[in-house]
Amino acid sequence: MKKFEEKTLSSEKIFEGKIISLQVDEVQLPDGNRSKREIIKHPGAVAVIAVTEENKIVMVEQYRKAMERSLIEIPAGKLEKGEDPVDSACRELEEETGYECEKMEHITSFYTSPGFADEIVHLYFAHGIRKKENAASVDEDEFVEVYELSLIEAEQYIKDGKIRDAKTAYAIQYLQLRKALGQ
Amino acid sequence: MKKFEEKTLSSEKIFEGKIISLQVDEVQLPDGNRSKREIIKHPGAVAVIAVTEENKIVMVEQYRKAMERSLIEIPAGKLEKGEDPVDSACRELEEETGYECEKMEHITSFYTSPGFADEIVHLYFAHGIRKKENAASVDEDEFVEVYELSLIEAEQYIKDGKIRDAKTAYAIQYLQLRKALGQ
Repeated sequence: MKKFEEKTLSSEKIFEGKIISLQVDEVQLPDGNRSKREIIKHPGAVAVIAVTEENKIVMVEQYRKAMERSLIEIPAGKLEKGEDPVDSACRELEEETGYECEKMEHITSFYTSPGFADEIVHLYFAHGIRKKENAASVDEDEFVEVYELSLIEAEQYIKDGKIRDAKTAYAIQYLQLRKALGQ
Repeated sequence: MKKFEEKTLSSEKIFEGKIISLQVDEVQLPDGNRSKREIIKHPGAVAVIAVTEENKIVMVEQYRKAMERSLIEIPAGKLEKGEDPVDSACRELEEETGYECEKMEHITSFYTSPGFADEIVHLYFAHGIRKKENAASVDEDEFVEVYELSLIEAEQYIKDGKIRDAKTAYAIQYLQLRKALGQ
């Protein structure tokens, strides 16, 4: 899909970080005029819907510096270089929550902020989760607390603003839809 | 919610653009160690679920330079400085699609990429939409084509990858849930 394609006239790399990079592209618009596009490149990420035998959704609280607050989110993390998303999903689930699973089912993938970033989140459903002995732990600069919430509690956390990110909102709505459809 | 707070030791502004800015903060972690956080600041955005009398979802196709492809999304755009999100939602709906509405209902708000950006999307449902005569048009550097899709078509567009962004995926699932609940 290349409709209204914006041809790159020049591209200036502004920043190359640990996680993101920033470039400014000068583009030729479909009418021949020029404009600039500020673009964040990101390696992509995975997120996992994991539900216990007791029908609780596994979530993690962590501090999010960009908003200067903590958020409760489904387990997630960025792809390591060359890593298959399904392996990444298993790794993040284990590191952040101590759970492993029998099978990771791919649900959907979406761009989070298509107006300025290429980040894509691959969303998985973890079937047959159980606590793993000697589970790998999170990176040394990550601090997380694990929560297990019923769907009703999760809905309340959204109302209270404790849960407030797109992938987790999508995941909760996904579980609401499954419930409404009797699945 | 300040759990696991990361105190700012220093903040370096790397880039100040038309839409986003980038800073790198050095932070003190809860265990006393130091780390760096790459942070994008964004003015925030609105997105609108608009359904016609014929039960078609109003969408727009546009080129997304970050991914070098076009995407079909619900009408959306960034907040202008000092603009009330509900006014922004009305403005974007009119500019991108030519529709006005009787009432904008706030559905939810979510951070799109909490790991590196503070962008928040305020999602609205436009009640009582109708084509406006002499509607305002999009910015001079925006090129969009309007689509009106049934829910079944939208579900197929997700499967085909023509629709692939978080806010639109959430919006379609929202309509699926309303349908499943008989609303």
